[in-house]
Amino acid sequence: MPRKLRWGMVGGGEGSQIGGAHRIGASLDGHFEMVAGALDIDPQRGRAYAVRTGITEDRAYGDWQEMLGRESGLAGADRLDLVTVATPNSTHHEISRAFLRAGFHVLCEKPITTTVEDGEDLLTTARHADRILAVNYGYSGYPMVRQARAMVRDGELGRIRVVVAEFSHGSHADAADADNPRVRWRYDPAQAGVSSVLADTGLHALHLACFVIGQRVRRVSADFVSTVEGRVLEDDAMVSLRFTGGAAGRLWASAVAVGQQHGLALRVFGERGGLRWSQEQPNQLYWTPLNEPTRALERGDARLHEVARMGSRITVGHVEGMLGAFGNIYADLAETIRARKERRAPHPAAQWYPTGEDGVRTLAVVHAAARSARAGGVWVDA
Amino acid sequence: MPRKLRWGMVGGGEGSQIGGAHRIGASLDGHFEMVAGALDIDPQRGRAYAVRTGITEDRAYGDWQEMLGRESGLAGADRLDLVTVATPNSTHHEISRAFLRAGFHVLCEKPITTTVEDGEDLLTTARHADRILAVNYGYSGYPMVRQARAMVRDGELGRIRVVVAEFSHGSHADAADADNPRVRWRYDPAQAGVSSVLADTGLHALHLACFVIGQRVRRVSADFVSTVEGRVLEDDAMVSLRFTGGAAGRLWASAVAVGQQHGLALRVFGERGGLRWSQEQPNQLYWTPLNEPTRALERGDARLHEVARMGSRITVGHVEGMLGAFGNIYADLAETIRARKERRAPHPAAQWYPTGEDGVRTLAVVHAAARSARAGGVWVDA
Amino acid sequence: MPRKLRWGMVGGGEGSQIGGAHRIGASLDGHFEMVAGALDIDPQRGRAYAVRTGITEDRAYGDWQEMLGRESGLAGADRLDLVTVATPNSTHHEISRAFLRAGFHVLCEKPITTTVEDGEDLLTTARHADRILAVNYGYSGYPMVRQARAMVRDGELGRIRVVVAEFSHGSHADAADADNPRVRWRYDPAQAGVSSVLADTGLHALHLACFVIGQRVRRVSADFVSTVEGRVLEDDAMVSLRFTGGAAGRLWASAVAVGQQHGLALRVFGERGGLRWSQEQPNQLYWTPLNEPTRALERGDARLHEVARMGSRITVGHVEGMLGAFGNIYADLAETIRARKERRAPHPAAQWYPTGEDGVRTLAVVHAAARSARAGGVWVDA
Amino acid sequence: MPRKLRWGMVGGGEGSQIGGAHRIGASLDGHFEMVAGALDIDPQRGRAYAVRTGITEDRAYGDWQEMLGRESGLAGADRLDLVTVATPNSTHHEISRAFLRAGFHVLCEKPITTTVEDGEDLLTTARHADRILAVNYGYSGYPMVRQARAMVRDGELGRIRVVVAEFSHGSHADAADADNPRVRWRYDPAQAGVSSVLADTGLHALHLACFVIGQRVRRVSADFVSTVEGRVLEDDAMVSLRFTGGAAGRLWASAVAVGQQHGLALRVFGERGGLRWSQEQPNQLYWTPLNEPTRALERGDARLHEVARMGSRITVGHVEGMLGAFGNIYADLAETIRARKERRAPHPAAQWYPTGEDGVRTLAVVHAAARSARAGGVWVDA
Repeated sequence: MPRKLRWGMVGGGEGSQIGGAHRIGASLDGHFEMVAGALDIDPQRGRAYAVRTGITEDRAYGDWQEMLGRESGLAGADRLDLVTVATPNSTHHEISRAFLRAGFHVLCEKPITTTVEDGEDLLTTARHADRILAVNYGYSGYPMVRQARAMVRDGELGRIRVVVAEFSHGSHADAADADNPRVRWRYDPAQAGVSSVLADTGLHALHLACFVIGQRVRRVSADFVSTVEGRVLEDDAMVSLRFTGGAAGRLWASAVAVGQQHGLALRVFGERGGLRWSQEQPNQLYWTPLNEPTRALERGDARLHEVARMGSRITVGHVEGMLGAFGNIYADLAETIRARKERRAPHPAAQWYPTGEDGVRTLAVVHAAARSARAGGVWVDA
Repeated sequence: MPRKLRWGMVGGGEGSQIGGAHRIGASLDGHFEMVAGALDIDPQRGRAYAVRTGITEDRAYGDWQEMLGRESGLAGADRLDLVTVATPNSTHHEISRAFLRAGFHVLCEKPITTTVEDGEDLLTTARHADRILAVNYGYSGYPMVRQARAMVRDGELGRIRVVVAEFSHGSHADAADADNPRVRWRYDPAQAGVSSVLADTGLHALHLACFVIGQRVRRVSADFVSTVEGRVLEDDAMVSLRFTGGAAGRLWASAVAVGQQHGLALRVFGERGGLRWSQEQPNQLYWTPLNEPTRALERGDARLHEVARMGSRITVGHVEGMLGAFGNIYADLAETIRARKERRAPHPAAQWYPTGEDGVRTLAVVHAAARSARAGGVWVDA
Repeated sequence: MPRKLRWGMVGGGEGSQIGGAHRIGASLDGHFEMVAGALDIDPQRGRAYAVRTGITEDRAYGDWQEMLGRESGLAGADRLDLVTVATPNSTHHEISRAFLRAGFHVLCEKPITTTVEDGEDLLTTARHADRILAVNYGYSGYPMVRQARAMVRDGELGRIRVVVAEFSHGSHADAADADNPRVRWRYDPAQAGVSSVLADTGLHALHLACFVIGQRVRRVSADFVSTVEGRVLEDDAMVSLRFTGGAAGRLWASAVAVGQQHGLALRVFGERGGLRWSQEQPNQLYWTPLNEPTRALERGDARLHEVARMGSRITVGHVEGMLGAFGNIYADLAETIRARKERRAPHPAAQWYPTGEDGVRTLAVVHAAARSARAGGVWVDA
Repeated sequence: MPRKLRWGMVGGGEGSQIGGAHRIGASLDGHFEMVAGALDIDPQRGRAYAVRTGITEDRAYGDWQEMLGRESGLAGADRLDLVTVATPNSTHHEISRAFLRAGFHVLCEKPITTTVEDGEDLLTTARHADRILAVNYGYSGYPMVRQARAMVRDGELGRIRVVVAEFSHGSHADAADADNPRVRWRYDPAQAGVSSVLADTGLHALHLACFVIGQRVRRVSADFVSTVEGRVLEDDAMVSLRFTGGAAGRLWASAVAVGQQHGLALRVFGERGGLRWSQEQPNQLYWTPLNEPTRALERGDARLHEVARMGSRITVGHVEGMLGAFGNIYADLAETIRARKERRAPHPAAQWYPTGEDGVRTLAVVHAAARSARAGGVWVDA
């Protein structure tokens, strides 16, 4: 294993679950070592926590501007190889842009920005700076999701006809909890923008659909409903889709689906077969070749596509979960970054991390869906 | 058990699967005895098959007109108590109307008619004749579907927010089989009308949604796609719904979902809990009370609602399937017919058979969805 | 369909579940018409119930002796083609023997007798009378169980190495209910004999194992435990088995497995593949060819073995349950009886009903297991 | 988070899967930093690989003796806090004993030793040295397994009547692969001792049973079979058990169960309820309170026992897998080691790691089972 890459994080401080998931994901396979961070909106708390996670005091920052200033000045072995941005959504644009401009590769939490314009600006910034801009659609790191993509790419399903994606849970179903500030802001347009649940969980399901079938969304027709009193933005959304390659799509996102613990699931139907996958049982991919019995493909099986085999750490039958999926995103980034440093082509099976483009395109679909829903379900270009 | 009721069937002849299911469903609990039938479009074949199924020669008819003529003249113990119409869709209206007018109770296969106008006409006919008109949405006879309806009715889920119904299979996914006449007519507007898969399987899922939440559809926004070359009508449809009681709905029907053997499933989400049911595992109903773990309710459990207990024949843990569900529809009809004869109120838990009104309303929703789809997804009154 | 066969039943009166299941199973496909019965230990109640189920008054008997006396005198079209014995276990021998001797074919509920000696006597009686003696191991009528047997028979699994059978439920787990007379007698040697749960549910699992792998049990080593205070006979049993064809077996039966609704399941492992089936999801058979992914075989699939296809009434994806399995046992008997009448060979795929020999052999295994358990687990010949 | 503990490993070199799992598990939550290792039987390869994993050259050893010699001389901040032994089974005793004697805490891979005598010797050694000796029954680190144990301990299931454990897979089912050296040695008594599959996977299932019900095994009756030609030791084993607290047990282990990918599963039945858990779906624990519907308890649920909540890193509905379970074993060890250093009581919910005693007791059960099997199934004290 080559020398560990240097990694820093903005946001993701104490009590943040996503911060912990990034730290584990980045270090899982020994690719990244966390050496710098501005982890909290409260400078003192952020510095203290950074030190407790093993960052040295001189690189435990009070805010991202301080971090940017000092880290920009470091070079050679000290230079950060990757910065993860895991701050509140509204700050993603400003922070990611600043780090990209300063020459850092950036992995930004989803949504990449809150407006499509800001997203496009980030893409331009990254292009000009010749830096990697990735977005953390972490579920696409699951080996069996990657297996699904590889199977579609290789034509094992033929032309894709219909893709059905959903990410529906019941976390915001309790009306008695609707005024809880951690919940309420999500349904307030002033804070959350044009969409709530579709922009939150629906975005993941949408990316998964695009990722697996290898097509982009062309047009959408959407229905948003708000089912809990006092909410302005939708807590349940259905979107019909048309993709560039001719596939049709159905995308359902909900936050009031009581009894669904997580609810991310994907079904793909092509002219030669169908696939089913669910995040709650991520180690299996169910494949039905046309006119044949359904087969259970298992993570860890030696006959899977290389990209699925590479994303596995333990033998078939054992369970690998979401932290492994995050680890696979980081592993791809590590290989890509190392290849750049070493002026070589990266391993082709390590190029499946979700890009900034993916982040902006899926965001554009959500915004188009919001326009369609407001306009009564008419078809809108994405 | 009281004396068996006398039952006749139009259609459902040799080789017809639905005919066999009706015969088993009607006789399963000993409620009906088949004594008359015009079972086939070919008079000779129909008569011969009728005799082979145990009908006496004098009531084994060559066509429905002959059957109607002679049966209308019989009275007393010979008089038919119920006629099931299981002929091609386009003939449902004419045949059902004729038997209703002649004073027979009618159970008609779905769709009740091919146009809403014809459906309304049937309802009027039945009302004027004071006869029962039922439609065979047979899946609503499953005990755990009825349990779900009873739970919603009794407020155990609170106000219903969202209902998600689907009936998507892969039976018409094979492009090589698309020109098979048994498949092709379904996608030809001249033969199948305004809708294919939504009018075929989607109708069942739609009825299940309405039946369980006890609400009618008010408005729809729909997307139809035709994914196999040469098809005019849709083989995949998504419909968003608004119900009279305020619930929102999502209804997906597909005939190209390779790998889904049957695909009828229902999820109901209310302010106090959620329910999940699937026809492929019909003996379980999964219930999640808000903020509590999910529970598996089992057919045959003594703690179920009376209507669910009445629809069970064997003890918990054993499997009862679709023929039992059909049997429950017939059992309800038997009780209703007997109550009429005996001038008494029927058992209240035996009044859950799908009515002609259910058949017409759901058909109207399909037609509204077809209009919405043609109009680009705009909301249309149902 | 040929003329219906004439059928009579002893036992299975009002309130008996198994009686209802037999009536439905026998009539499901129109093979048998119930024309005679001595249904209850209480003559008056039995006669009244028989009439209510459609038996004419002259053949509604007060007890089996009366039935035997009068039915023995009938001939031609009135002669009973089959008598089902569904009385308490201790009476199976006497009643079945009497009807066999009088020249009737007999289907006896399980266990065929309470002692192996009585069982052997019945076999001899049936042989001398040249009558069919069958035992109602009804679960072997499930199409996918028959598919499993056909696959093993055809060598698709290679030599069978291990078979794992279980039938474990929690029906007798409630200590507060242990003194309920309906439960208590089962654990009293004076009433239930040498074994309780193994002789009750274990017998079905054992038969399924033998039926599917096509081998007989040679030797057993058993462990019986009684886990609820006051019970003498076992409420949980484990048996290791050796079969004539070299397979090893593991058989678990329990009545205290809280949470298992039914619990009948079978797993078969051969040198070329494995099979899994569970009664609670009977329409699927999971097949794993060696070194290949697991496949879900579905009831109703046109590619199944003929014997599995013959046992299906409705299309793939729909659910057929236990009553259909019973119906398949009766369908096999009907074909066998008709073939005898018509002096022709029966359809080879309709010869899979469980025979008296099956009933006696499996009973012998239970008795051997009881001896082994009493002797501290030593191996005992079956 | 306090300063990381220093950790070393013997064995687990390049290509070893278990080595990788230990490295991830130890570092997952930042408790341990790997600073020393003798990772390979080939000194040069082991040193090179150690350096590649981030160990400094001076602590990358050629063999364990070298490691022991130099590490014993280090003190203070350099002193190793824990040594993991992941070498071939036959070397566990010697290496663990040497490190314990030198004053190191030891986590040994399973089986802890190959003979019970060696195991007892290790326990004595650890006691004399006052060092922690743990064994890596890693599956007991799954949060829902710990939840099960907490529920039993708190009496939520009442007295335990029966526990059913199995760990049966098909990895050694292919006869064509039986002579592969990686497989063959396992069935050779000279290399593997008295038991193959029971000592390999069965040991895990056995520990899980003991761990969850909180009882030790008192007596066993076993049946071993060898189903593939040329094997001496068993590839399929069934053991009946009696526990100190009165429970009965059934333990099945197999290596020829084609189609079972992993196969570790546990069912516990008490007088007040039942539990079901399977490693292939580890985030759910199914709980059936007596006379109530089955409930699905979910990892990450705030209402779980503290020990289950502590072992979770991500929110409910996401999947955590085996590496998280390993991480929980290491987290417990870290807390125990830190408490010792800080002369305080460890957190009570962090004391559930599997101990050397657990390792020796379960090994003794396997050896007793082997004696029972050889003696024809008679009951043997464990």
